Amino acid sequence: MSNDGAVLHAVIPAGGSGTRLWPLSRTDHPKFLLPLTGSAASLLQTTVARLARLVPPERTMIVTGERHRGAVAAQLPGLPIENILAEPSPRDSCAAIGLAAAVIARRDPDAIMGSFAADHLVRDLDRFTEAVRAAVAGAERGWLMTIGMKPTHPETGYGYVQCGDLVDGGPIRRVTRFKEKPTRELAEEFVASGEYLWNASMFLWRVEVFLAELARQRPALHAGLVRIAAAWDTPERAAALAEVWPGLEKIAVDYAVMEGAAAQGLVATVPGDFGWTDVGDFHNLGDLLPADESGNVVLAPGDEEAEPLVRLADSHGVVAVAASGRLMSLLGLKDVVVVDTPDALLVCARDRAQDVKLLVDDLKTRGDADLL
Amino acid sequence: MSNDGAVLHAVIPAGGSGTRLWPLSRTDHPKFLLPLTGSAASLLQTTVARLARLVPPERTMIVTGERHRGAVAAQLPGLPIENILAEPSPRDSCAAIGLAAAVIARRDPDAIMGSFAADHLVRDLDRFTEAVRAAVAGAERGWLMTIGMKPTHPETGYGYVQCGDLVDGGPIRRVTRFKEKPTRELAEEFVASGEYLWNASMFLWRVEVFLAELARQRPALHAGLVRIAAAWDTPERAAALAEVWPGLEKIAVDYAVMEGAAAQGLVATVPGDFGWTDVGDFHNLGDLLPADESGNVVLAPGDEEAEPLVRLADSHGVVAVAASGRLMSLLGLKDVVVVDTPDALLVCARDRAQDVKLLVDDLKTRGDADLL
Repeated sequence: MSNDGAVLHAVIPAGGSGTRLWPLSRTDHPKFLLPLTGSAASLLQTTVARLARLVPPERTMIVTGERHRGAVAAQLPGLPIENILAEPSPRDSCAAIGLAAAVIARRDPDAIMGSFAADHLVRDLDRFTEAVRAAVAGAERGWLMTIGMKPTHPETGYGYVQCGDLVDGGPIRRVTRFKEKPTRELAEEFVASGEYLWNASMFLWRVEVFLAELARQRPALHAGLVRIAAAWDTPERAAALAEVWPGLEKIAVDYAVMEGAAAQGLVATVPGDFGWTDVGDFHNLGDLLPADESGNVVLAPGDEEAEPLVRLADSHGVVAVAASGRLMSLLGLKDVVVVDTPDALLVCARDRAQDVKLLVDDLKTRGDADLL
Repeated sequence: MSNDGAVLHAVIPAGGSGTRLWPLSRTDHPKFLLPLTGSAASLLQTTVARLARLVPPERTMIVTGERHRGAVAAQLPGLPIENILAEPSPRDSCAAIGLAAAVIARRDPDAIMGSFAADHLVRDLDRFTEAVRAAVAGAERGWLMTIGMKPTHPETGYGYVQCGDLVDGGPIRRVTRFKEKPTRELAEEFVASGEYLWNASMFLWRVEVFLAELARQRPALHAGLVRIAAAWDTPERAAALAEVWPGLEKIAVDYAVMEGAAAQGLVATVPGDFGWTDVGDFHNLGDLLPADESGNVVLAPGDEEAEPLVRLADSHGVVAVAASGRLMSLLGLKDVVVVDTPDALLVCARDRAQDVKLLVDDLKTRGDADLL
């Protein structure tokens, strides 16, 4: 896998419920477990399969919530059970990724680790594999690597990396700035400048390099994670988790490590062009999945074999998700999202799909916990 | 009720399932049994209540299908049970109305009968009562009376009456032509002429005048109905129904009697202006029921007391029917109909609401009988 004998481990943090995909995505059925891929495979299964070209199952690790451990194991029967790391509670991505790094470092101190979101889609597997290989080469040389996507619009939900000089003629470029979730104004400036790429939440690094940078920037978080990792493969794991985990700082790795590391000149990127998407909302999903001749996309999770439950007449650009087993009759619609689940129905203008999270916030405010 | 001692009987043919109101309206839960009135009352209950100003319950008669007899009786506990006439199978409106006429004629040969659809709405009860009284006066004088509505558009689903001279200075006008369900071209011509009124499916006549005209135009149908009526209040009823009913001609009273009677100069009309509507489809329903400040109408049949199940955000002109008990979240919609029932969901552009019947035709073609 690498030139000097260091091997790649894949880490897939599988957290977050995907509130913009409510009511399909729920606390108990989060986005990464759902078959939003145009096949029966879940996003998580697809992510593992995508990485299987680069990493065998014994070096693929999932970090997920305790409540999802069973579902993850059931979806990934080929993965060694000890490679599913269960978090007692969500402490954001730095704790999740840092725990994996620390556990891997104990098992294989020279390891290179690649972290990949559990709920993204990639269209071109060959190009993806090629980009990851290039990033592994950068990680071997000591960079904290990202894979950068050409931005298509001033999205404020992503991180941005500012590209500097090529390293040794490319394809790796130095990163002169890492800015997580910029304001709208800043995002527009970044996109207009042509200098920035989106960080697609893919990170590759030597575990020792990452842990050293974590220790420098977030010493308490580093110390806590190292302590848990030391106990991980021993009978003390539960005790260490119970004692240390609840006190860990809750912060994204982008803020905790990447922004500061970039300021120190430790970050580099490989531009990737492989049809990446984060399946953020139902509008995205409609763009991703195969459409009929009128641009309608129908998704019937878990019921691919049954009589079609969605009947469309004179409709265009519809995204229909049939997850309740009921007949959905849609007539004369244009650019509408309809998501039908056993206890909740969403009907939404397609250009308002990103605001579905506001509906979820409203449910939280009302205390409708069953529906979250 | 009348000047010469003849009394008014009200007849309410309650048939038809209201396919344009699918999936709310079903074969087993037809339109007339549904609370589409802005209150907990069904259309049928509202119809009976509207007529109670003119006719006591003992002279109010419902003609409905055998399968709906129990539901009708349950909705109308104040009605004598012998006033609910149950048809073994649907034989269209001439058989239904003719059966009522023949049964009433045996009980009260001098009776005046008014027939009123079970599933229409009227806004102004005083004007309605006044129009019916005027029509009763015409019926006493031997006319086959209709109540005519000023047409607002070239609807092809209604009958049209062409108004001739006033009778004795009004308000009754002779009808020179009765045309049921004209072509589009003809309907446009009728509306443009200013001479036509819609027949609102309200008929008033002496039962003997109607039966004589039925005998002239449809002697076999008349003979069959008279034979059943003769057995109705005897132990022979079931046998007569079983023998005669299945062979009765299946035809609307408009074609069977009214068109021909108008050609003979026997029909007259009273113009009515009392906010009549036939609650034809969900678009109509949205116009009828109270809307919020954004023009959205929410109907939660049978669940008026519960926590609102429909949450609307940034939506306008929506008609939402929450009949499944599930949460309906609607975001950014304009002029969309959403009807949520336990086994079927309809989402439809409001200006396509009349085409919902095409979806029902499709269900019939596919043999999805459970959903009809």
